[in-house]
Amino acid sequence: MHPGNQAEGPLTPGLVFEMLQAHQRTAALKAAIDLDVFTAVGDGPGDVASIARHCSASERGIRILCDFLAIYGVLVKENGHYRHSPTSAAFLDPRSPSSLASIAQFLGNPAMHEPYLHLADVVRAGRTTLPGDGSVEPENPVWVQFAETMAPMMAPMAAPLGAVVLEGHNGPMRVLDIAAGHGLFGIEIAKQNPQAHVTGLDWAPVLRVALDNARKAGVHERYNMLPGSAFEVDFGGPYDAVLLTNFLHHFDKQTCVGLLTKVRGALRPGGRAATLEFVPNEDRISPPMPAAFSMTMLTSTAAGDAYTLSELTGMYNEAGFGGIKAYPIPMSPHTVVMGHA
Amino acid sequence: MHPGNQAEGPLTPGLVFEMLQAHQRTAALKAAIDLDVFTAVGDGPGDVASIARHCSASERGIRILCDFLAIYGVLVKENGHYRHSPTSAAFLDPRSPSSLASIAQFLGNPAMHEPYLHLADVVRAGRTTLPGDGSVEPENPVWVQFAETMAPMMAPMAAPLGAVVLEGHNGPMRVLDIAAGHGLFGIEIAKQNPQAHVTGLDWAPVLRVALDNARKAGVHERYNMLPGSAFEVDFGGPYDAVLLTNFLHHFDKQTCVGLLTKVRGALRPGGRAATLEFVPNEDRISPPMPAAFSMTMLTSTAAGDAYTLSELTGMYNEAGFGGIKAYPIPMSPHTVVMGHA
Repeated sequence: MHPGNQAEGPLTPGLVFEMLQAHQRTAALKAAIDLDVFTAVGDGPGDVASIARHCSASERGIRILCDFLAIYGVLVKENGHYRHSPTSAAFLDPRSPSSLASIAQFLGNPAMHEPYLHLADVVRAGRTTLPGDGSVEPENPVWVQFAETMAPMMAPMAAPLGAVVLEGHNGPMRVLDIAAGHGLFGIEIAKQNPQAHVTGLDWAPVLRVALDNARKAGVHERYNMLPGSAFEVDFGGPYDAVLLTNFLHHFDKQTCVGLLTKVRGALRPGGRAATLEFVPNEDRISPPMPAAFSMTMLTSTAAGDAYTLSELTGMYNEAGFGGIKAYPIPMSPHTVVMGHA
Repeated sequence: MHPGNQAEGPLTPGLVFEMLQAHQRTAALKAAIDLDVFTAVGDGPGDVASIARHCSASERGIRILCDFLAIYGVLVKENGHYRHSPTSAAFLDPRSPSSLASIAQFLGNPAMHEPYLHLADVVRAGRTTLPGDGSVEPENPVWVQFAETMAPMMAPMAAPLGAVVLEGHNGPMRVLDIAAGHGLFGIEIAKQNPQAHVTGLDWAPVLRVALDNARKAGVHERYNMLPGSAFEVDFGGPYDAVLLTNFLHHFDKQTCVGLLTKVRGALRPGGRAATLEFVPNEDRISPPMPAAFSMTMLTSTAAGDAYTLSELTGMYNEAGFGGIKAYPIPMSPHTVVMGHA
């Protein structure tokens, strides 16, 4: 992955060229999802003509697109025919239960891509060039899209997060899910503990998505909605646990400390606050995915970041939490960091 | 490079996420070049504050940008300081004689990126959505930018191409350089053979760049200009050699055959026509760089392609050439294919 850091082999400008063309990969995968290429490939027989027919697209376009996807390992090409790779079978065929095709809508949202068109200006300014506070502007409609499309990416994190939050905890409990989004994390708690009551906090249009998911999971009678800003609404409580998933990274440290302090005030003594975050190592350049997430925060927020464990621990401590511990989720770029009130 | 094709290790959605975020890499490298980050890193000491000062940029922006470049192997980070990787020292520091920083201007040209914003439409239509014939529209100003900025990328190809074209050829010769651009290929012939006279053919504003380069190389007295379209102007001749560098890929096969037929008519018997091309293997998905070039042709032309050797050989044959042979240029994605009139 890091040819530039390695002395092996002759030095070529391949890495420079590859990076300057990397934008093609994003466009190609999004186009293939939009055109329903992965359904066509799953159906077979996988020749250009039949895929083009299924997608109502030109044969030249499909051939070049599918070749491109095969070059980058998304499809397999054999004897002029395309078939699924393990990745496309599991994560891109819309009929796969683990399909992630919908996340291309959020990750490919043109509004969120806009700052990359003038990234040098963003780096000069040190903050998003999106209006106001960027992605965390009040009522930003992007979070409805997040709730509607990113659930498949977040779903595998729900059970591990639930296990950490529920460990050693039985019987009735009240849980606040801050920035609930699709609601899957709070819903998971309600599924695992039939005596848990969950309150989802988010913008009202987002909570409609969460409630819909709660209904599908059969836990809507124990799912309450608290619409508004996490910084402004009264949390109520006391709660046994508060979830803060994919949220702290949008804000600067002092704002996070302020929010965590408010969270601690809404927890019963000994109650738990659990964040789900991209947590890079202290070098901030590994592992690649959590570390690179800071770029998304640079372009979309005023002062957010991918915080290291020492930074998150510092925030928790400053907010009065103790017993802070990290639980990396296996085979995922996410980590749960939990503290006790 | 092809994690999706490999069964090793557990299956994760990493490849899907990586591709959907790949556009960040292009933006990051272009921003770093535009901000002059690589001069600052070369100067040292490489801490965030001094790089930010040099670049007149924020520390938050520089820290996140340089971390991102280190994640992808463009820079090296040690003890919180950034230094050059072999790649950035050779190809991105503006003071390096092999610096490629200028190619980001052409490869990052917003007009050429535009079709990727709606690539599904391009695939449906099977052709560029740029006006007219896309990049090969008459007098498209993008070719002045190509001539002015892509020379550092093409310069290493000039000597190997010259060696192939000149092999076994001594004394006076006349050479036509079609789509001369920066002019480096014809100029190389003039440098290697002091009795060679070179005619550069391209749009007039492009030829001014080529003539300027001929002047710098001290061969301008043997450099003539033939402004216009390769499909319309009278080539004159007869020539001993005709160069067609980075040109055939813009057109469909029949157009290429027509042009090669015209080229043969302008060559003396036994004269040479040499193309420089991205030539993928017959599977069209390897090697990655030449194969992926067809995507650039899909988005920027009506019917161009990265042609395989059998396709190029077929075109040469149909145009009446013989003795067709491929000369891959070592450590580059380019191949010279030469035929004899």
